[in-house]
Amino acid sequence: MALKNIREDSYPDWYQNVVASADMAEVSSSPGCMVIKPWGYGIWERLQRLLDEKIKETNHENCYFPMFIPLSYFQKEAEHVEGFAKEMAVVTHSRLASIDGKLVPASPLDEPLIVRPTSETIIADSFSKWVHSYRDLPVMINQWANVVRWEMRPRLFLRTREFLWQEGHTAHSTFDEAEKEAETMLEVYKDLCENDMAMPVLTGKKPEYDKFPGAVNTYCIEAMMQDGRSLQAGTSHFLGQNFAKSANIKFVNQNNEQEFAYTTSWGVSTRLIGGLIMTHGDDEGMVVPPKLAPYQVVIIPLLKDKARENEILSYAEKLRDELKSKVFASEKVRVKLDNRLKDSIDKMWEWTRKGAPIIIEVGPKDLDKNALMFRNRIYINDKERWKNFEDFDSFVNSISDKLKDIQDEMLKRAVERMENNIVTDIKTPEEFEVYFKNSNVFLENSKNAPKVAFVKGKWSGDDDTIEKLKEMRISIRAIPFEQSGTEGVCLVSGRKATIDVIYARSY
Amino acid sequence: MALKNIREDSYPDWYQNVVASADMAEVSSSPGCMVIKPWGYGIWERLQRLLDEKIKETNHENCYFPMFIPLSYFQKEAEHVEGFAKEMAVVTHSRLASIDGKLVPASPLDEPLIVRPTSETIIADSFSKWVHSYRDLPVMINQWANVVRWEMRPRLFLRTREFLWQEGHTAHSTFDEAEKEAETMLEVYKDLCENDMAMPVLTGKKPEYDKFPGAVNTYCIEAMMQDGRSLQAGTSHFLGQNFAKSANIKFVNQNNEQEFAYTTSWGVSTRLIGGLIMTHGDDEGMVVPPKLAPYQVVIIPLLKDKARENEILSYAEKLRDELKSKVFASEKVRVKLDNRLKDSIDKMWEWTRKGAPIIIEVGPKDLDKNALMFRNRIYINDKERWKNFEDFDSFVNSISDKLKDIQDEMLKRAVERMENNIVTDIKTPEEFEVYFKNSNVFLENSKNAPKVAFVKGKWSGDDDTIEKLKEMRISIRAIPFEQSGTEGVCLVSGRKATIDVIYARSY
Repeated sequence: MALKNIREDSYPDWYQNVVASADMAEVSSSPGCMVIKPWGYGIWERLQRLLDEKIKETNHENCYFPMFIPLSYFQKEAEHVEGFAKEMAVVTHSRLASIDGKLVPASPLDEPLIVRPTSETIIADSFSKWVHSYRDLPVMINQWANVVRWEMRPRLFLRTREFLWQEGHTAHSTFDEAEKEAETMLEVYKDLCENDMAMPVLTGKKPEYDKFPGAVNTYCIEAMMQDGRSLQAGTSHFLGQNFAKSANIKFVNQNNEQEFAYTTSWGVSTRLIGGLIMTHGDDEGMVVPPKLAPYQVVIIPLLKDKARENEILSYAEKLRDELKSKVFASEKVRVKLDNRLKDSIDKMWEWTRKGAPIIIEVGPKDLDKNALMFRNRIYINDKERWKNFEDFDSFVNSISDKLKDIQDEMLKRAVERMENNIVTDIKTPEEFEVYFKNSNVFLENSKNAPKVAFVKGKWSGDDDTIEKLKEMRISIRAIPFEQSGTEGVCLVSGRKATIDVIYARSY
Repeated sequence: MALKNIREDSYPDWYQNVVASADMAEVSSSPGCMVIKPWGYGIWERLQRLLDEKIKETNHENCYFPMFIPLSYFQKEAEHVEGFAKEMAVVTHSRLASIDGKLVPASPLDEPLIVRPTSETIIADSFSKWVHSYRDLPVMINQWANVVRWEMRPRLFLRTREFLWQEGHTAHSTFDEAEKEAETMLEVYKDLCENDMAMPVLTGKKPEYDKFPGAVNTYCIEAMMQDGRSLQAGTSHFLGQNFAKSANIKFVNQNNEQEFAYTTSWGVSTRLIGGLIMTHGDDEGMVVPPKLAPYQVVIIPLLKDKARENEILSYAEKLRDELKSKVFASEKVRVKLDNRLKDSIDKMWEWTRKGAPIIIEVGPKDLDKNALMFRNRIYINDKERWKNFEDFDSFVNSISDKLKDIQDEMLKRAVERMENNIVTDIKTPEEFEVYFKNSNVFLENSKNAPKVAFVKGKWSGDDDTIEKLKEMRISIRAIPFEQSGTEGVCLVSGRKATIDVIYARSY
């Protein structure tokens, strides 16, 4: 079945098919875990590189903390924090013994160890040793690491037991400075999503019932996927003094008084790649924005005419080298010359499915004309703009502009889709229910507009609304920072309400 | 106690002191694990960046495989491989339950999972799915990951339960191609050690008794530490068809016959940082070669004269910006302007202990003369060359040459130490025993030559020599690739022998 039909039929099946046909990742025989393959990992490396620069520019330094956290650290947390999740990998033994030729766990540990689901507790422990005076603050660190949460319904990139992420952790001497830090990092994430991933996001804070356990405020970025669902793409937590109190991060302030530090934490993960797929993927497979593409340009030499093989290869190499010397978004252009022994049409479709932004073919005719034929991945449904012939020099000299146009166009399409699909004219609980009954409709693009996606409306905040939303499988994705302040009707309870929220189904 | 005295007294204590005083890492409250702090992690990031480029240049791609390996995978290995180590972290439960307010492991797994000590088995499992025909070969991948081995005597960087590394894994269609790959990657490691770390290494293969279990050949790089001991800095294994057979990596060859693939694996880890410390550290702390220094130049503004504070800061910023625009080893110069509110002498010694290659102070006098005072970390014991005054422009314009000179001088010193300490004139088992009785003598530098380090001599290869070496706590570090072919006397058994080996104590 073609991807197009699959997408209309079942968006989750389409998603799986794209991951497979773009060769980005696969299900591992290690239960619930994934193998991230070179094209998927290459995109992650690009995301890492770009975000790491932003993290360093905002004065954070990278560290590495142990992945094993003693059970007792969670005991403290369990006592202090409601809604503490307990699905975690537990290490109980430190050896394998061979009994009758069969390997079994041996040497039980005195204290079981938890494979980090996140590192607040173990990092707070270090902070408590590092921080003594206001002069030691702020401490602003980040780590790139693997984490484990025992998911029961794994999905590649979106929800796997082990995943890769960065987690930033900071400690400050004042409430305001820490709160500002949590906001700054949310802006950094928004910048990454919009300017690098071409994936627009809404920002706001989570309602009380959906905060990170122990946080004063959880800020979030939410992205609208093509099926109208929301993906929580990243979170930034202002933790107040809560973690400082349980880990004893104390300092002597400028008035010579003991005070608990104010901490934050913030993270994004390989889940972003899932978001990238569901923002840009199409009926032919993956589409990668130029800033994240491991290769922005792929050159396929057409070598059927054996007599001219060397000549064509030299021409392709010259093209590669000239393109590589050009700069896009402050980096050298990334070019792959694909000279594998494989049919060139197969190669062209392989790179199309992977979503390389520009795919070039060079054969004898191109050589004779000092020109080339290139395909522009994002215009695959637009005959006029998909296949293009261009003079060699003119192509090379305009490569930065071409990549910029693609990046901009991808963002524009995604922004349009999001803006066109935030419904603001639902006024009653009845309309709200009817609206979400139509949910799960697939939104291909802004022209073929969806019937359901995000609803912006009022919320009264009562406990019964939270219950009712759960039953309806709808959640409050964010309380936008910008509030109208007007009074209206809560779309869940029908009561008077002032808070504006974004309602949606979610991943 | 000054580091100098500690180093003479106990080299292991000196090592710990350097790690602490350079603020590179610390012991974690997670048993046997370490916290890698920003300066230590910054050096690791530099190592990663430089090695990753070399790995990609030699046609490998990065991937990521799950860190949990089902127990049954080790069952296979245990049946096939002698000398299979069993000290590993075993995950047996997937949840914590709260019983009477106390958290305990719950939800036992059907099959225990092992936290990867290395990934041959799980990666071979993927290879068996990816490889069908000779056209699918070679497969050449690498991953950057954390691994766990249940060390009982942990030491920061050298031996911790969790450590960071890269592991390359490849599969090939011929014996020769795979063997060549294992040799190529050993050369890549040698290049990294010598040209980036300024740490010379000996290369060769391990004797049969010390090979990686399952390998046909284990190639190694061995570096001489300042105390005469050898550090195994990296290994590259040619695995023949052994892993392919147990994981069923089969392909149809060009003669249309089923054949098992030939595989390799190779890795280096954060242990290299331990080697870096014991190659270059001195009585004042750490010394980092320019190619690996997170900051190659640190600028400390002298701000005592409040009236001129802004003027001096501007001067320091101008210096930073001009230096940052210069290039060393194909990268922009990395400069830190340290304007923390802290005594400048304290800062100077802090960066000296961390081993930043060049530390600059700029104060009112420098400003008036359009000059600066810089300290050259490697010449701290040479009054003439340690503190230097230089004109602003002349300094900025010569920064690349200065960094190159430091990098070269550091390699030169380490090469001299190694070359002067490989003893080749021991001819009998009696002399050999006497020689190693004097072991553990500290080698500060090539002038103050050590009495013991490496011995190059003959080995008869018999089982009883292996036993005797173990008793003497000496090991065969490598069988050099270049063999003299002459006959002589085995330094352990006294029997006739032809194989040349390197004997040493080791880390």
